[in-house]
Amino acid sequence: MSLDPASIVAAPPGAALVDSLAAIVGRRHVIAPDEDQEPYLVDWRGRYHGRAAAVVKPADTAEVAEVVRLCARAGVVVVPQGGNTGMCGAATPDGSGQAVVLRLDRLNRIRAISALANSITVEAGCILQSIQEAAAGVDRLFPLSLGAEGSCQIGGNIATNAGGTAVLRYGTTRELVLGLEVVLPDGSVLNRLQGLRKNSSGYDLKQLFIGAEGTLGIITAASLKLFPRPRASALAMVALPEIEAALTLMGRLRGTVGDRLASLEAMSRGQIEVIAQNVPDVAIPFALEAPWFLLIELTDTLAGTDLRAPLEAALAETFEEGLVLDAVIAESGAQAEALWKIRHSVSEGSKRAGYVVSHDSVVPLENQAAFARNVERRILEAVPDARVVMHGHIGDGNIHVLAILDAARFPDATAAAPVAARINAVVDDETAALGGVISAEHGIGVSNRARLGRVTEPGEIALMRRVKALLDPAGIMNPGKVLPPEG
Amino acid sequence: MSLDPASIVAAPPGAALVDSLAAIVGRRHVIAPDEDQEPYLVDWRGRYHGRAAAVVKPADTAEVAEVVRLCARAGVVVVPQGGNTGMCGAATPDGSGQAVVLRLDRLNRIRAISALANSITVEAGCILQSIQEAAAGVDRLFPLSLGAEGSCQIGGNIATNAGGTAVLRYGTTRELVLGLEVVLPDGSVLNRLQGLRKNSSGYDLKQLFIGAEGTLGIITAASLKLFPRPRASALAMVALPEIEAALTLMGRLRGTVGDRLASLEAMSRGQIEVIAQNVPDVAIPFALEAPWFLLIELTDTLAGTDLRAPLEAALAETFEEGLVLDAVIAESGAQAEALWKIRHSVSEGSKRAGYVVSHDSVVPLENQAAFARNVERRILEAVPDARVVMHGHIGDGNIHVLAILDAARFPDATAAAPVAARINAVVDDETAALGGVISAEHGIGVSNRARLGRVTEPGEIALMRRVKALLDPAGIMNPGKVLPPEG
Repeated sequence: MSLDPASIVAAPPGAALVDSLAAIVGRRHVIAPDEDQEPYLVDWRGRYHGRAAAVVKPADTAEVAEVVRLCARAGVVVVPQGGNTGMCGAATPDGSGQAVVLRLDRLNRIRAISALANSITVEAGCILQSIQEAAAGVDRLFPLSLGAEGSCQIGGNIATNAGGTAVLRYGTTRELVLGLEVVLPDGSVLNRLQGLRKNSSGYDLKQLFIGAEGTLGIITAASLKLFPRPRASALAMVALPEIEAALTLMGRLRGTVGDRLASLEAMSRGQIEVIAQNVPDVAIPFALEAPWFLLIELTDTLAGTDLRAPLEAALAETFEEGLVLDAVIAESGAQAEALWKIRHSVSEGSKRAGYVVSHDSVVPLENQAAFARNVERRILEAVPDARVVMHGHIGDGNIHVLAILDAARFPDATAAAPVAARINAVVDDETAALGGVISAEHGIGVSNRARLGRVTEPGEIALMRRVKALLDPAGIMNPGKVLPPEG
Repeated sequence: MSLDPASIVAAPPGAALVDSLAAIVGRRHVIAPDEDQEPYLVDWRGRYHGRAAAVVKPADTAEVAEVVRLCARAGVVVVPQGGNTGMCGAATPDGSGQAVVLRLDRLNRIRAISALANSITVEAGCILQSIQEAAAGVDRLFPLSLGAEGSCQIGGNIATNAGGTAVLRYGTTRELVLGLEVVLPDGSVLNRLQGLRKNSSGYDLKQLFIGAEGTLGIITAASLKLFPRPRASALAMVALPEIEAALTLMGRLRGTVGDRLASLEAMSRGQIEVIAQNVPDVAIPFALEAPWFLLIELTDTLAGTDLRAPLEAALAETFEEGLVLDAVIAESGAQAEALWKIRHSVSEGSKRAGYVVSHDSVVPLENQAAFARNVERRILEAVPDARVVMHGHIGDGNIHVLAILDAARFPDATAAAPVAARINAVVDDETAALGGVISAEHGIGVSNRARLGRVTEPGEIALMRRVKALLDPAGIMNPGKVLPPEG
């Protein structure tokens, strides 16, 4: 398991490294610095730009392990990269040009699927949507769903413990993982892929790699939970006088429809205005007069279940009490899709509106309303010309606060850095004060590592460092990510 | 975080240790060797008998931390003990008389409960049933349910990643834990108790302590998930011609009622005979002519939901096909309770029937029927006079195989050891061959540590050892448990 220090030699010169990698994966699956590496050197938002000694695309777990062993022997840093849709630069190499970017694309097989066992075993490079489709093909649901599902890879979803719009009902990615196959930083393979529903046979080591963003090893395959497929649903979009009303509505609906409550997605008025102004073909079914809007979806696995009646009853009751100002219930699948399209246009709309300083804090549910209010007020005090909009997963305590800056004045991360630092300080301060953490579902990566220590306890970070040193003593596995800079 | 080796002094003589502990918790909360330590020195099945330098009952987390710091400085071993209902001797001290048994009883406060956030924060010594009741008091469900719920403590449930009869619907204990407070082996406190629904802010360290059986630290409090409370249910007990029929029935029911399928508990004919012969006031509603029997429970959170109709439909369909031989549907709450009583009498009945060599293997669902069949056949080949009975959680791949030996010939563990070893070898061999692990929900403790290495990969066990050494370098925290003996 441990790396023999005697075997570490100086990093080979670029051409020799490319040749060594080519010997493992074949020359056409290695991209040298003088070839078209560009798509793999920059994150999708264009915030981080790196360089690489090579981009390598192994075909299977054995090749991943061999590449990692080569890099471990040579002391070369490995940066695992999935669909490259992350929000925090965790999959981008640094500027040194010394790293190997290891793409998982070719590990894209579905190894097994069982409707009986409600499970699917997939390789890390499988696109999330292809897993959803495979599940549907056996009349099951894989519930993980998020904006990037058409291009993100499941390995990256697991490495960031992705959230999305179905956490309320089905939990985070961590809760969907039954087993993992991981290539460790010394090139050995940890196989915990059996997909057992229960296991009390020693420490659950696989948990360490979920949410570790590739800093402890490379996830190469996973066994995942499937669920019975919903066959009935009801969707409403409602206008609320204040964010607290969303929580009251959640409590009422849980009291009657229970787990049929599948999604509760809130958007501030400003968030919807940003979408309406920047994304074509999005229809907003309200005059935007209320401060908050909420998408409510109920689902049931039993075809023909009447979900509309309890939804209408809850809305009528809360309308009477002034907790709901207006409501639209989808009358068809097309209308439901149109309502969901608003929510799914959040990232695109915000990106087009300017330079976005976005946040991913999660706080205990009881503190959510205070968090939203305090953060908005304090950002506007600190940066009066910021446009503060919010959207979030109401049942999870996870409100994304976005401060949108004028793109002309703040064309890139460097220009925005001083203002972003002021905004981050406000968010981190409120997050810590209200008992939260800075990332619910996007991860830490490069973007947030310096912020982690402002919110997470020093003792906890110290223990994370010791876990990192235990698993990756040579520090070759995605260094400079997640853990705060030392000293 | 790390233990300063210079601070380790020789273990103080018994009286001095008792005095030092008394200075922390008060003299009446320390039990010296010449006082009544007996209940804390033996597991409930009477398999393991130890001795202790002291039994100590701290009042709160601060006192637990101070006791651990004292023991760390003195190089004294700490054995955490909850309700002492475990199956594997994980909470029993060894025979050296050098250990401090740390009871969590007095940490029995419910610190917070929120119906809105669907969460409860409890101390480790809370009895499971008291947590279920507190949840019911705010119209919520805490779903963990198992035979010992009237006396087991939640800290022990978490430390063994307990399963029980609701895993099919709600997951194992691990999946119910939102946050933990843990006293580490150096006496520092890791506080991850916020109860956040989502968290991608670095490594999820709390996962290490779930299922670690107190070998990495002492769980002192936990934040747990609550759920909407079921308000409708339907229960049937059916006779099956073979165990495969249970899986078919599960698939059918999942296809229609989906997650309303809450429990699927199987018992072999022999298992029910053992209960009928040994437990008073248990009514068996069938002639015991079929080889397998299955309890099926459907639940729904919406009052008045007709669950009986889809249950009857599934049973009628499978009866037609010969997959179900007979069925009883509970007509009242009292009848449902009487059926559940059969299942809940499994441990009591088996214990009274003789010396029980019990197993807790879990295999992939597809291999469950082969596992049950092969193990039964091979145990009877190896030990012809054993009585082999089985019960298990059909949807989880977890079949408990019990070999019951004549109590007159095998009065205790020592007498049974050679035969138990032959039986264990069969179970371990089949478990490994069919891709399973030896403990689904009971844990490893002392009983199973030598067996762990026969089924779990050497690389995985090596990594577990390194995690243990990282967190507990001095080896004072419940040593001799979980990890296989070295060499």
